[in-house]
Amino acid sequence: MDVNEIPTPALLVDATAFEHNVAAMAAALPGPRLRPHVKAFKSTALARRLVEVGHITFCCATPREVVGMAGAGMGEDLLLANETLDPARLHAMATSGARVTAAVDSEATVDAAAAGGIGEVLVDVNVGLPRCGCAPEDAGRIAELARAKGLDVRGVMGYEGHLMNVSDQEERFARVAKAMGRLTAAHELVGGEVISAGGTGTYSTNAAATEIQAGSYTLMDTAYAQMPDLPFQLALSLWCTVIHVSPDGWAVADGGLKALGMDHGNPSVDGGEVLFCSDEHTTFTPDPEQPPTVGDRIRLWPAHVDPTVALHEQMHLVEGDEVVDTWPVDLRGW
Amino acid sequence: MDVNEIPTPALLVDATAFEHNVAAMAAALPGPRLRPHVKAFKSTALARRLVEVGHITFCCATPREVVGMAGAGMGEDLLLANETLDPARLHAMATSGARVTAAVDSEATVDAAAAGGIGEVLVDVNVGLPRCGCAPEDAGRIAELARAKGLDVRGVMGYEGHLMNVSDQEERFARVAKAMGRLTAAHELVGGEVISAGGTGTYSTNAAATEIQAGSYTLMDTAYAQMPDLPFQLALSLWCTVIHVSPDGWAVADGGLKALGMDHGNPSVDGGEVLFCSDEHTTFTPDPEQPPTVGDRIRLWPAHVDPTVALHEQMHLVEGDEVVDTWPVDLRGW
Repeated sequence: MDVNEIPTPALLVDATAFEHNVAAMAAALPGPRLRPHVKAFKSTALARRLVEVGHITFCCATPREVVGMAGAGMGEDLLLANETLDPARLHAMATSGARVTAAVDSEATVDAAAAGGIGEVLVDVNVGLPRCGCAPEDAGRIAELARAKGLDVRGVMGYEGHLMNVSDQEERFARVAKAMGRLTAAHELVGGEVISAGGTGTYSTNAAATEIQAGSYTLMDTAYAQMPDLPFQLALSLWCTVIHVSPDGWAVADGGLKALGMDHGNPSVDGGEVLFCSDEHTTFTPDPEQPPTVGDRIRLWPAHVDPTVALHEQMHLVEGDEVVDTWPVDLRGW
Repeated sequence: MDVNEIPTPALLVDATAFEHNVAAMAAALPGPRLRPHVKAFKSTALARRLVEVGHITFCCATPREVVGMAGAGMGEDLLLANETLDPARLHAMATSGARVTAAVDSEATVDAAAAGGIGEVLVDVNVGLPRCGCAPEDAGRIAELARAKGLDVRGVMGYEGHLMNVSDQEERFARVAKAMGRLTAAHELVGGEVISAGGTGTYSTNAAATEIQAGSYTLMDTAYAQMPDLPFQLALSLWCTVIHVSPDGWAVADGGLKALGMDHGNPSVDGGEVLFCSDEHTTFTPDPEQPPTVGDRIRLWPAHVDPTVALHEQMHLVEGDEVVDTWPVDLRGW
């Protein structure tokens, strides 16, 4: 199929950029050194490409991602890098046939994991981002609680999410090292073989983790693209049709904030400037070198890949103008 | 079912607030004076409540909303208040069994509507929001083009979206009147019985329109709630479980930016303050009068209803702690 036959708005994945990103990361963090984060792409078809280059351990943010990955036959080692208290979902993960490890950071989350039939856990440690995770000095106690409930404690995890977009590499390196000091201190109290941390922004600056949780690198977004040292290319775009061209200088694309994650701001457009997004429209000033006409197709570049993908039922893999595959976004919801 | 049995995150609709909103609008704009905008709620089950109070004409932003409303038996008079060039979707709407009217604002959109088998159109007029819509002085020409293609021109539409959140009522009234001056000028050139415009923010300040396109009033959001003269109550909340309570003063809910439209900013929490949203978390400082414990349920109040609903498969209608109905969000996508 030609890309111009795809109804818009729709997500395109540029095959060349995607394969570049996957290969670059697999070279830097081969096999289980990377635990790809499924939350970024929510697609078992995309995940299968990562298995093909040697990553067979995966990280998930929701029970649905875990159960879906298990159902697709990629359940060799799935980490729910998040806390849940939901008995039915814990049970669904525990009986999914996969090896499932869950994060715990409190007595309540330990009790829920044990009651739900989960066998293995990581102690989630706060490394500076004000979110989940126990204090480093409390990690040993959480591990003991877990072991007392019969859970196997594989180690620790911590997410330095507040440092993902620190653009200066040296500053990022220093701040990540400090954050990871908290995690390794916790690890000394907890034991186990796993120190799981990191993300696309810190994949090369986090020297403490035994495995890096990165997913956005596969598709990338304009926020991560602003970081000068990341070797990944923008692969994900929103394919739109121009439905209006104003004589006063703006044009309108038929994809808007219901097709784009907006928490990192507006998308970008090549050669022009996005003015604002409405529910089903993006108003932009076009590239003056290439004034559009109604019916033209254009690409918008999302500012944040994860919530953008979650708004779509599928992504189309394209090589030039040829659609070579269509990946269902089959892990949406909770 | 008790509301505490619902897996989180999930959307709740407070039945009392919802029924208040529906009744208040039906009293102000009875029957076809209101053309409820389906884009706000994307649910045929919710739409059916509006039919029960007398609104049988509806407004849609996407072909899927039109086709879905037709399939659910609410196709008496459906307006696609948007331009599309997609032949397959135009054909699907035209053959849906519904009375379908589409917006047109250029020769290309007129040609597409005619080629797709659409029978009736409104000329979409720019009334000040830099988006779609022809210039008022061009509306007569567009109407002639449409009639020459055999299309029945029912009138004009224009959306004063840039004025929806002007909080001062007097200023809003004056600016809406000016915007509607553009629309009535266009209407004089176009003819027809319909002048379709407005939204929740201007439903009572738009005196020129023969029908108002409002949908958000049914569920409301914190952005619209800041407007002092709107008589509608917050009905939509994101039901979450507290999964972490930090000794340092914050707590974490298990719903984040993949469950909340973020283009209008963070959600709100009663008695506390939202610090930030992550993909699957919201970190907040809780109400000091009611410090939460892990496992508690809380409500987050979305800043923008339309994209929030579009992230969910269903909404639960609740009376107190009782879930009295569950509405599929069955009109998502395009």
